[in-house]
Amino acid sequence: MFKHEKKLLHEVKVDRPNPTYAVLLQEQLGGPNGELKAALQYISQSFRIKDKAIKDLFLDIAAEELSHMEMVATMINLLNGHDVDAARVQSGVIEQHTLGGLSPMLVNSSGAPWSANYVNVTGDLPADLLSNIAAEQRAKVVYEYLYRQIEDRGVQETIDFLLNREEAHNALFREALNKVGVQGSNRDFGVDEDARLYFDLSTPERYFDNPAPTPTTFSNPRRSQYNPDHTH
Amino acid sequence: MFKHEKKLLHEVKVDRPNPTYAVLLQEQLGGPNGELKAALQYISQSFRIKDKAIKDLFLDIAAEELSHMEMVATMINLLNGHDVDAARVQSGVIEQHTLGGLSPMLVNSSGAPWSANYVNVTGDLPADLLSNIAAEQRAKVVYEYLYRQIEDRGVQETIDFLLNREEAHNALFREALNKVGVQGSNRDFGVDEDARLYFDLSTPERYFDNPAPTPTTFSNPRRSQYNPDHTH
Amino acid sequence: MFKHEKKLLHEVKVDRPNPTYAVLLQEQLGGPNGELKAALQYISQSFRIKDKAIKDLFLDIAAEELSHMEMVATMINLLNGHDVDAARVQSGVIEQHTLGGLSPMLVNSSGAPWSANYVNVTGDLPADLLSNIAAEQRAKVVYEYLYRQIEDRGVQETIDFLLNREEAHNALFREALNKVGVQGSNRDFGVDEDARLYFDLSTPERYFDNPAPTPTTFSNPRRSQYNPDHTH
Amino acid sequence: MFKHEKKLLHEVKVDRPNPTYAVLLQEQLGGPNGELKAALQYISQSFRIKDKAIKDLFLDIAAEELSHMEMVATMINLLNGHDVDAARVQSGVIEQHTLGGLSPMLVNSSGAPWSANYVNVTGDLPADLLSNIAAEQRAKVVYEYLYRQIEDRGVQETIDFLLNREEAHNALFREALNKVGVQGSNRDFGVDEDARLYFDLSTPERYFDNPAPTPTTFSNPRRSQYNPDHTH
Amino acid sequence: MFKHEKKLLHEVKVDRPNPTYAVLLQEQLGGPNGELKAALQYISQSFRIKDKAIKDLFLDIAAEELSHMEMVATMINLLNGHDVDAARVQSGVIEQHTLGGLSPMLVNSSGAPWSANYVNVTGDLPADLLSNIAAEQRAKVVYEYLYRQIEDRGVQETIDFLLNREEAHNALFREALNKVGVQGSNRDFGVDEDARLYFDLSTPERYFDNPAPTPTTFSNPRRSQYNPDHTH
Amino acid sequence: MFKHEKKLLHEVKVDRPNPTYAVLLQEQLGGPNGELKAALQYISQSFRIKDKAIKDLFLDIAAEELSHMEMVATMINLLNGHDVDAARVQSGVIEQHTLGGLSPMLVNSSGAPWSANYVNVTGDLPADLLSNIAAEQRAKVVYEYLYRQIEDRGVQETIDFLLNREEAHNALFREALNKVGVQGSNRDFGVDEDARLYFDLSTPERYFDNPAPTPTTFSNPRRSQYNPDHTH
Repeated sequence: MFKHEKKLLHEVKVDRPNPTYAVLLQEQLGGPNGELKAALQYISQSFRIKDKAIKDLFLDIAAEELSHMEMVATMINLLNGHDVDAARVQSGVIEQHTLGGLSPMLVNSSGAPWSANYVNVTGDLPADLLSNIAAEQRAKVVYEYLYRQIEDRGVQETIDFLLNREEAHNALFREALNKVGVQGSNRDFGVDEDARLYFDLSTPERYFDNPAPTPTTFSNPRRSQYNPDHTH
Repeated sequence: MFKHEKKLLHEVKVDRPNPTYAVLLQEQLGGPNGELKAALQYISQSFRIKDKAIKDLFLDIAAEELSHMEMVATMINLLNGHDVDAARVQSGVIEQHTLGGLSPMLVNSSGAPWSANYVNVTGDLPADLLSNIAAEQRAKVVYEYLYRQIEDRGVQETIDFLLNREEAHNALFREALNKVGVQGSNRDFGVDEDARLYFDLSTPERYFDNPAPTPTTFSNPRRSQYNPDHTH
Repeated sequence: MFKHEKKLLHEVKVDRPNPTYAVLLQEQLGGPNGELKAALQYISQSFRIKDKAIKDLFLDIAAEELSHMEMVATMINLLNGHDVDAARVQSGVIEQHTLGGLSPMLVNSSGAPWSANYVNVTGDLPADLLSNIAAEQRAKVVYEYLYRQIEDRGVQETIDFLLNREEAHNALFREALNKVGVQGSNRDFGVDEDARLYFDLSTPERYFDNPAPTPTTFSNPRRSQYNPDHTH
Repeated sequence: MFKHEKKLLHEVKVDRPNPTYAVLLQEQLGGPNGELKAALQYISQSFRIKDKAIKDLFLDIAAEELSHMEMVATMINLLNGHDVDAARVQSGVIEQHTLGGLSPMLVNSSGAPWSANYVNVTGDLPADLLSNIAAEQRAKVVYEYLYRQIEDRGVQETIDFLLNREEAHNALFREALNKVGVQGSNRDFGVDEDARLYFDLSTPERYFDNPAPTPTTFSNPRRSQYNPDHTH
Repeated sequence: MFKHEKKLLHEVKVDRPNPTYAVLLQEQLGGPNGELKAALQYISQSFRIKDKAIKDLFLDIAAEELSHMEMVATMINLLNGHDVDAARVQSGVIEQHTLGGLSPMLVNSSGAPWSANYVNVTGDLPADLLSNIAAEQRAKVVYEYLYRQIEDRGVQETIDFLLNREEAHNALFREALNKVGVQGSNRDFGVDEDARLYFDLSTPERYFDNPAPTPTTFSNPRRSQYNPDHTH
Repeated sequence: MFKHEKKLLHEVKVDRPNPTYAVLLQEQLGGPNGELKAALQYISQSFRIKDKAIKDLFLDIAAEELSHMEMVATMINLLNGHDVDAARVQSGVIEQHTLGGLSPMLVNSSGAPWSANYVNVTGDLPADLLSNIAAEQRAKVVYEYLYRQIEDRGVQETIDFLLNREEAHNALFREALNKVGVQGSNRDFGVDEDARLYFDLSTPERYFDNPAPTPTTFSNPRRSQYNPDHTH
């Protein structure tokens, strides 16, 4: 069962309206690496999971992503200001002024509608966890791009909070992957000869040796295990 | 520049026509974890990459995925048999008998058209590599599901080859991520307090401690570094 | 802020696995009149609403629709049984057996991905309320079609609960529309001559007089005001 | 059978080219509340209707919406001017200058292609009528947004005509819903206890009593029945 | 202005219900080579055409395609029979039994929604005419596939009529292309050296000489100019 | 099997960054008439072709179109410059600055994702060849529109090369159609009376006589057969 509280998960600050930046921010409401995508991916995956710890983790984070979606939408709503007026959008799409009456919309920054094509669900724990780790890393990237293009301090602080939460989720999903161990698609990983070939099909140049695959695990989800020299 | 050779990358075997199974196999031609998606994701990512080793790796694998796509399509073509006749499809969609004249089509096993929404490109190396690792793991999963639902030995052998190649790519992308080190979105990972919180929003139950994130790296892309006890 | 409770909103019963019926039921998980659509439509509309009563109503119902989505997904999960095996699907799409590993997916009963194109948000209260009333009526219709095609008593009882909830929401939205009165798009309704013409463009036959429009209001959202003779 | 007359349904006036505004106006040609959507929704619904009066009404209005589509396209064509030159678009998408050669296109104001996902057809008269009433109200809203953002008198007059026609259709569909009475999804409305519950899932606050639903009917489709005091 | 007549363009015959075949026939209602696509492509192209003869031709054929759409939908409606019952669909999608209440829907035979991506409009007469000629030829192909998979004589006769009409349109568009002569994209065709190269990128084998392009024209749109020996 | 060479098919020149023009050029990377569409259409068609000469032609041109795609992407990459900064886009979409980190993306100039709906495959040689001829003519048109809107000499020269290659492909496909003769959908063309009717449904005006169709063939794919007087 889902419940809603009127209180936001975290304060949202917007110093002044900026309809042009509202268009950029749509990317994290209705885009492929946005908050709705994250929430629905984790909820969808949770539907069939039997492992109680993983199921709980997915739903904890999914509920948080729904709450982030609400924060992003609140920012967009404030940035859109008070009047439909497409002329106030310097670049990017103007559909919020023709269709949505300045409401935050479930579209990306190009106005393309949110699609379940963004959601990856396989019913296989290692694969689903890797999908989530990748999704969180991409979400961080988009927030970094957005952060660089706004000078509004309130917006920057809100984005900064959201960006840091993606890092937290990323680390938790990695820890979970290490925890579930060799099951599902991580079984029988790299046992056949065909998995140890390298086809050098783009010429000239080759830089990597033949692979000798192992199941996917992460070296350092948590700081306590972290050796910075190792990662450079 | 791309070139084509009439010879397939690897022999394709189909013992007998099976239009129903051809529908299942469409998933890896035109689906979200299929060969076309993989090829176009890596090609798209390669367009802006400056690191020569990574760019070469992406294009080596992309060319191989295009060659896999050709193999999957060849299997579908043989499985479809000789006559448009939707009645020979026991379950699943029948559009190959109304629209495509038995040609392999760029649709998934539900007939939904291939969409660039499947492709993840961020221009950030760690994020793009993680997207690729996840994509390869999911592709393995789909081949496992497909393998279980066919008794044709030729098809099984061909699927087995393709499945193993996904493991090889997976390991190479992990090795590459370790190699590129702390750059882009892996920089400043986990330095803020907000990245070390846990919101326990799905109740009851909580199983994970607060995270203390580090940059993403893999413990064991290659067998030589592989300690099986560690991963259980 | 959104929260999740492990307890379902209402008990879900499935007497026995039925992968074919799971495909039909996908319509109310990922289809245009399904639970996800309803939830996201009301959440999206709520983002900009200033009227406190309406905003609360939209969020109460949205959270319930998310909870319905969880119920529908739980039914699908149980109906899908234990093994990927497309041959067990008598008719309809088989992607849950190639891609999703039997997980409930965000697609309709034809496998088309959920799309934000299903969501209507205008930022105008009368229009948004009418969109919701229509959506609830359509959702009831789909549940009626689904009810007729299953003999599993558990599934029937669960569908019956969901169907009745759509009626409740429908009535509440009608009451809300009457309450908000003549504002937004209900202002200046029918004041011009052009609004009182009838173009009889399909020939032969004409059955309606010229209209003389008024703002949209409902005669009887609630039973206490209900005169059954009036509606026949 | 459909026929076309070269004469427009109503005069279209455009005082001067304005490629930027042409982008806004695309919303009503190829958007979710646009003329094509309305036309195809009513035509699709008409295909299975047995009630002669309702079928005629749907086809009268559908033919009018096709004629409105032609008017909107004519406006866009005149607004686009004479030369492909994306630089003349101040904000919004520029695809008419790369792909369409200034032709009106079946896309919305964000350039997203028209999709049958916009069309609601259930084969149930009350549900389909409510879908149409909501669609007409939304179409009016979009025309209001568009009207406010243009100073060209000719365009304003044309939009004003179209806006008033949506009111006329709205009223006619309401009258039709009252006329068809308690059939289809309006049967057995609100008879179960589950339809009389209220789940207060968004906290704090609750503003509405438990519902006691009745079939949907409208109090005042026509002015002759209109009591303005009642609606404030 | 568009008008509708209750009389069908041509009699539609269906000997008996066949819900499975109704799914196949959806391809020509809501598919990429179907009647709706043809109608909307020619209408869209007509919006900007100045040449009166071509504009009239496009609108004559567009109105006919709308009328074909009505005929195809009428067939589907009759084939769908009287009860929602997905079990009566032997193969293919079952959404007409979950969502549409047996109404003909704007989807293809895989249930994918009709999309304006099917429509080609460039604002260039030679390109648009070639798009139409290709569209008509593909439509004929789909009708041939459909014809082979039904034994209902009534349906066969109706399909035969529609198939022949595509040939008529095809010939008329070819005649129109020859008539408009060297304009637009047919100007300066093949004047540069780069247009006379051949890149033999698929090896081994090469079968064609270097091209020496000319503007596109057809040798024989009409039988009076037809020399059957020439085309073998 | 597909292979990649690091060398581009043809030199790409860009005199200076121009993020606004990069948006326009996306049309030929990810749009309906772009290079990816052409490549995938011809590859898809090739999968089932038995005629060796036609299959080789399709794969020669498909490999070239993939190589063109790489050239277009290289131009976009250079035009995008060095910093994510949506404010540098004067008009059009800004998603490359929010999502893609300036990477070329598989979207059109409106940001709509590439879709397999753009691809026409019927398994019928005459129909597929006509689809390709039309596609090449449209691609030329788009390059002409793009050429007119840029003053960068390097970009102009690159576009000019690509435009000329479309003419070459167009001519080769026409020659191939003439070569395959009367087979598939070109058989029995125009033999029935229904194919010789004209429905004059758009009134007033009629300009064309009743058709008397013949199989589609081209009068002059090559210059050696070219009589310029004939085409005016």
